[in-house]
Amino acid sequence: MSIPLSIEWNNKRLKILDQQKLPLEVDYLTLETLEDVYDAIITLKVRGAPAIGITASHGLAATAQRYETNSLEQFHQLLCKDATYLAESRPTAVNLVWALERLRNAVQNAATVQEAKERLLEEAEIIHKEDEASCRTIGEFALSLLGDVTKVMTICNAGTIATAKYGTALAPFHLGSERGKQFQVFACETRPVFQGSRLTVWELQQSGVDVTLITDSMAAHTIGAKGIEAIIVGADRIVANGDTANKIGTFNLALLAAAFQIPFYVAAPSSTFDLTIESGEKIPIEERPSEEITHIAGKQVAPNDTKVYNPAFDVTPSSLISAIITEKGIIYPEYNENISAILSLEKGDNHEN
Amino acid sequence: MSIPLSIEWNNKRLKILDQQKLPLEVDYLTLETLEDVYDAIITLKVRGAPAIGITASHGLAATAQRYETNSLEQFHQLLCKDATYLAESRPTAVNLVWALERLRNAVQNAATVQEAKERLLEEAEIIHKEDEASCRTIGEFALSLLGDVTKVMTICNAGTIATAKYGTALAPFHLGSERGKQFQVFACETRPVFQGSRLTVWELQQSGVDVTLITDSMAAHTIGAKGIEAIIVGADRIVANGDTANKIGTFNLALLAAAFQIPFYVAAPSSTFDLTIESGEKIPIEERPSEEITHIAGKQVAPNDTKVYNPAFDVTPSSLISAIITEKGIIYPEYNENISAILSLEKGDNHEN
Repeated sequence: MSIPLSIEWNNKRLKILDQQKLPLEVDYLTLETLEDVYDAIITLKVRGAPAIGITASHGLAATAQRYETNSLEQFHQLLCKDATYLAESRPTAVNLVWALERLRNAVQNAATVQEAKERLLEEAEIIHKEDEASCRTIGEFALSLLGDVTKVMTICNAGTIATAKYGTALAPFHLGSERGKQFQVFACETRPVFQGSRLTVWELQQSGVDVTLITDSMAAHTIGAKGIEAIIVGADRIVANGDTANKIGTFNLALLAAAFQIPFYVAAPSSTFDLTIESGEKIPIEERPSEEITHIAGKQVAPNDTKVYNPAFDVTPSSLISAIITEKGIIYPEYNENISAILSLEKGDNHEN
Repeated sequence: MSIPLSIEWNNKRLKILDQQKLPLEVDYLTLETLEDVYDAIITLKVRGAPAIGITASHGLAATAQRYETNSLEQFHQLLCKDATYLAESRPTAVNLVWALERLRNAVQNAATVQEAKERLLEEAEIIHKEDEASCRTIGEFALSLLGDVTKVMTICNAGTIATAKYGTALAPFHLGSERGKQFQVFACETRPVFQGSRLTVWELQQSGVDVTLITDSMAAHTIGAKGIEAIIVGADRIVANGDTANKIGTFNLALLAAAFQIPFYVAAPSSTFDLTIESGEKIPIEERPSEEITHIAGKQVAPNDTKVYNPAFDVTPSSLISAIITEKGIIYPEYNENISAILSLEKGDNHEN
């Protein structure tokens, strides 16, 4: 039993867990070229905003080692071209652009090409280690917040394989497992794309966590029947007043937590906050293709010409959130004041950009 | 556009819609023998408690026409044997046993075998027509209760194809369609067995109703984003205090209705009430096989050895139910008094048995 990692960086060799093959096959791919990295991101072999950023960083740093020039100007040009290329692999992933930008900034003042190459390797390593430390801290805070609670529900996969290690919402379970604290986790399958069944169940099993799979529709009954004590989820974007966009189904769970009077926690790194947006109504909700709902594993389950509504995210109003757990501390209501205080961010800041 | 029927009885010929082939194929099967009827029920080609009872009634009546005896005693023996055989096709379907019992009672006082044969045909026809009338009345009551409401959410398939015609929860939409009232129905797909995608979307499309499919996890977001005004569901069992067992996911929706302050209606015939049970905690909840959740269309979506919790039903406490719509009238709280008053049932009655 050990916490699975989605990114391995050894002797300048980048390997990633092929998440498309999970849960039936556990396959690590070596990414040799920049094209391999681009392909791994665009085909969702690596997923989760932090994991994508880390993979791209190592990939770009490794590629730059092979630039055959002694001209710094030419080096910067090549780096810019490759960074731009990688950034296009997943245009909506803000962490990807942010990580590539950090690499380019790291070599701004390098005196030689050799120094620039070394700095890139170091910076990619720092980005990787920072994310692991951040997730670990989130896990520590979450463990302290959960206290004696052992029965917890979650949705989607805010897990170790979406980050450097530990994950965000799943961090307390992995960390608890390392320390002999046994949780009983109930994972919602997370329609339409089944991140719960495919990824969360798998990674918690690997870590030795007691995990039970339910359909999303079973959440209310299960909270009552199994005595769920808390719900913890990740976040895609948290805005200035604490309203939180996350995988569709999260808002459902927040309303159930309120009805059952159990705490509802959001766990996310500070990079998830976007203080340029005041409140949740202003978060655009992406709608995805009908086929995700009408077809499953290639089989059609709904009639031809079925009208579908398929929003990818929903927005949980901050009034339903008991606390937001970040690597900088636990944020409680009133979120409008406390988010900027704890993150030391000014209103209007988008931490991602 | 017309309301699809799952059972056709013409010139002593019984045809049923093969619901296993929906929604991709619309195929009506002629059931020639008692074995055909048994097979159609056990393989779920016909489903829904009322539809099963009606199919079995016609099937038994048609079979009895072929008994080659003039002895009433022998006739009763043959009838008893065939009824017992059919009853085993779906032992948990209370309507099945109830319908077969009605047929046997109908011939108790027949003077001749010929008269008994005629009475069976008549009684099967009555059971069929009664169910259609009952569903139509439920639809009328539901239409009056919904008033100006047009945006309604539902789960599972309490529809025309589960009954003689119209269904229960879906009756107002079919009836509305006949009369030019256009609803906008949002159908939850209903994991794990997809009755929403496979059956509800199909039958409402056939009837010309504007229906949109969502996953169960999208309910909360959709209620807000699309302005859903009411939720209506069927019921598997309603007990003395109004607590209602129905397809897993129903309780979720009832809690969401309360949170959004929109009405939550249960539509069900009086045969659904079981007053031998005082309150919902005493309703046994059937658990179904793990594979319904871990495998979809034969494809494995969760790891090997996944621990699963798969309750088939949940129980919605009557405090969350705005009204129960039956063919005998609309029942409002306090349910403890009003259920027995409207149904003219005594506490302790199980209307099914």
